[in-house]
Amino acid sequence: MSTVPKTLHSDIDKTIAQLRELLGDRISTVDSVLQQHGRGESWHPTQAPDAVCFAQSNEEVAQIVRLCAESQTPIIAYGTGTSLEGQVQAVNGGICIDLSQMDAVLEVNTEDMDCRVQAGVTRRQLNLYLRDTGLFFPIDPGADTSIGGMAATRASGTNAVRYGTMRENVLALTVVTASGEIIKTGTRARKSAAGYDLTRLFVGSEGTLGIMTEITLRLYGLTEAISAAIVSFPDVRSATDATIQTIQMGIPVARIELVDRDYMKAINSYSKTDYPELDTLFLEFHGTNDGVAEQVKLFEEISREFGASGFQWARQEEDRTRLWRARHDAYYAGLAVIPGSRGYVTDVCVPISKLADCIAETQQDIVATGLFAPIIGHVGDGNFHSTIFIDPDDKAMFEAALEFDKRLVQRALDMGGTCTGEHGIGIGKLKHMRNEHGDGAIATMQSIKQALDPHNIMNPGKVVDC
Amino acid sequence: MSTVPKTLHSDIDKTIAQLRELLGDRISTVDSVLQQHGRGESWHPTQAPDAVCFAQSNEEVAQIVRLCAESQTPIIAYGTGTSLEGQVQAVNGGICIDLSQMDAVLEVNTEDMDCRVQAGVTRRQLNLYLRDTGLFFPIDPGADTSIGGMAATRASGTNAVRYGTMRENVLALTVVTASGEIIKTGTRARKSAAGYDLTRLFVGSEGTLGIMTEITLRLYGLTEAISAAIVSFPDVRSATDATIQTIQMGIPVARIELVDRDYMKAINSYSKTDYPELDTLFLEFHGTNDGVAEQVKLFEEISREFGASGFQWARQEEDRTRLWRARHDAYYAGLAVIPGSRGYVTDVCVPISKLADCIAETQQDIVATGLFAPIIGHVGDGNFHSTIFIDPDDKAMFEAALEFDKRLVQRALDMGGTCTGEHGIGIGKLKHMRNEHGDGAIATMQSIKQALDPHNIMNPGKVVDC
Repeated sequence: MSTVPKTLHSDIDKTIAQLRELLGDRISTVDSVLQQHGRGESWHPTQAPDAVCFAQSNEEVAQIVRLCAESQTPIIAYGTGTSLEGQVQAVNGGICIDLSQMDAVLEVNTEDMDCRVQAGVTRRQLNLYLRDTGLFFPIDPGADTSIGGMAATRASGTNAVRYGTMRENVLALTVVTASGEIIKTGTRARKSAAGYDLTRLFVGSEGTLGIMTEITLRLYGLTEAISAAIVSFPDVRSATDATIQTIQMGIPVARIELVDRDYMKAINSYSKTDYPELDTLFLEFHGTNDGVAEQVKLFEEISREFGASGFQWARQEEDRTRLWRARHDAYYAGLAVIPGSRGYVTDVCVPISKLADCIAETQQDIVATGLFAPIIGHVGDGNFHSTIFIDPDDKAMFEAALEFDKRLVQRALDMGGTCTGEHGIGIGKLKHMRNEHGDGAIATMQSIKQALDPHNIMNPGKVVDC
Repeated sequence: MSTVPKTLHSDIDKTIAQLRELLGDRISTVDSVLQQHGRGESWHPTQAPDAVCFAQSNEEVAQIVRLCAESQTPIIAYGTGTSLEGQVQAVNGGICIDLSQMDAVLEVNTEDMDCRVQAGVTRRQLNLYLRDTGLFFPIDPGADTSIGGMAATRASGTNAVRYGTMRENVLALTVVTASGEIIKTGTRARKSAAGYDLTRLFVGSEGTLGIMTEITLRLYGLTEAISAAIVSFPDVRSATDATIQTIQMGIPVARIELVDRDYMKAINSYSKTDYPELDTLFLEFHGTNDGVAEQVKLFEEISREFGASGFQWARQEEDRTRLWRARHDAYYAGLAVIPGSRGYVTDVCVPISKLADCIAETQQDIVATGLFAPIIGHVGDGNFHSTIFIDPDDKAMFEAALEFDKRLVQRALDMGGTCTGEHGIGIGKLKHMRNEHGDGAIATMQSIKQALDPHNIMNPGKVVDC
């Protein structure tokens, strides 16, 4: 795949001048703004765009794209800057379109349990807006990301085991194409057999085929009862086997998260808690009072078979919040173990029957390399993150982490899995694309990219540039 | 979109001779075979291909496609011939590839609850194969269709309200592209953020982008308890309102089917049953014993609020089978009302809040036109079929049906719905594509078609040829 050469300075100045005419003071070339928009939350080095535009409407995004298309200037969409694989890095310079000012909830259809939002709405903002409707948007990748960014990377997180990922929960889109046309994909109907599934083609395309400006989402009814729990296991395999059996029995668990003993130790130290420092499952059950009681009973039976102990249940909201805070603190707890470190997050996902083996082999690898790389997993989906905490000045440690990740991805692919369950490709996982998909599927993806973005201006250098 | 001209006889003879060398007696030009492969189960006139090939492997399909690609001969994939919108009609002649001999279940992974099948496996064959595993494949469009055909048309049916459609249940594919390459899309991992979602692009593409030869499917655990029911309502609106509330309360109903009073009368007459001749819901609940009991209790409470009466419950398998047979007999019962008639099946799907209005307006339209067009609906999804039973010799009646369908589609689109919930576009619904999607989205679909099938040999004249 050919890439757009780094933007020529003479062209970009003209384009920026034109954009300034359009946007007034809603375009910035201030260095701190450029730097901030050239990085996500990962170890990938900042690559700043030439300018940042703050768009406020579909038509404005379309106008920006049309101006950029004239001069074949790269365009990168930006939500909250929480991506983990270098998705927003301006590898060839160009114009960043910051969508955070497109933050309106446009409609909520309570009877249909759906809503339409602008791309810059964040998931917490949406759930706050929905507070009095009895509905909620379940997908929770941890950070308070924008819905546009979540759609772009096909995000998921802790609730996906029950409610699915962005793939299952985006019903329709408004998209600005590479030629600056505004198109609509999908409808609010729950199903359709009317032509190609453009909605799911744009979901997960990371801004390389067009810019999603409005997203229609499925919502869910808040359930009568919610119960959260924390349970210890003698080892990761027992925890994973209990998970597999829970899923196979069709228990509609809403969250089932593995936190390994290394992370539990770090959490206790960081969050001043005193949880058993064992391989642990954090769980949540949603349903009617009777339904949750039944789920809890079945899960307890299963997990006792696998040697579980120390059940702690939390039904009140504040108790549940405290419990989940411990889980969400894990990353910061890990950072505190090696002061000054940063995290290199891996993201494989395998068929659930392979999960115990995949984690066990990965743990052996961790021991062999001597890295500090504790594991958290969305184990109901077969997805887990081993985060390597790295001293940024230690190049050898970084190289070891890269090699470890490479082996981990190969292990997952050999087991029929994928290199990324939920973080996407960006630039960080480009090197795994051919290995995962094969030349034929990559050629098909590249043909689509070429057809929809013939001048390769939409987030060039990402996803299919391999 | 340009279409391939009707195959030139001189070219096709050479291509058929080459294919005969490859396939021996597994290619047919016998007229009855050609005729049988040039029609589905609908009113669309037969358009026979020039030859039918019976492929037995991925490599053989690829070889056939490569031979056809050389002479730019149209290629139409064929499963069980049960499509309803002219999907298999050879509108420009060409080669039909019958996949019914590719009927092997290749693997079943019980722990992961998935399987991989060849495209010619039918859904009943698969469920028979799975009988001793405790697993089943829930998608049930009525006919015993091939899994390949179901994937090609993004089929769904009675269980979709709980288990989703083919969109949600295909995990991965093997596809022969328009150039005759064999590619793989997706993995067995439950989720992935690795690049463009080719799997969902091919699902629903009706053979216009490539031929799916192997399909990896999600399976589900058979539940401890199943309970079926039939319940009468004073009118369609009450039945629909009860449905809406059931869905909104999150009751995980497995089937919820509306059969209107006209159909109930026809069923009683045809099937010698004595169900109340009222607007009726047929239901099924899956779960644990306690779970099903709770669902039933909640549903009864809801439906009583909407004036329901005459609950009949069926828990034993033979009672459930008898109850669902009545539902499945509806089409034949309709045909029997007008002897010699054939059915023209409509297929709109709307947001569920609009369903009662959409059906009510449609019923007024039926009364105004004087057509016999009873209604069956997968109402949990907002999808319903009004089937117009037509005397094939009555051209005015057929014209009236076409006009009725056109008004019905416009009504559904005005309500934010789709022209087809589950039958697909084929040639029958081509005329609605621009109206539903808009020129921009159609241009995007056509760009993809052009990119993946530059010579327009894959099922030309369908889906995006509008």
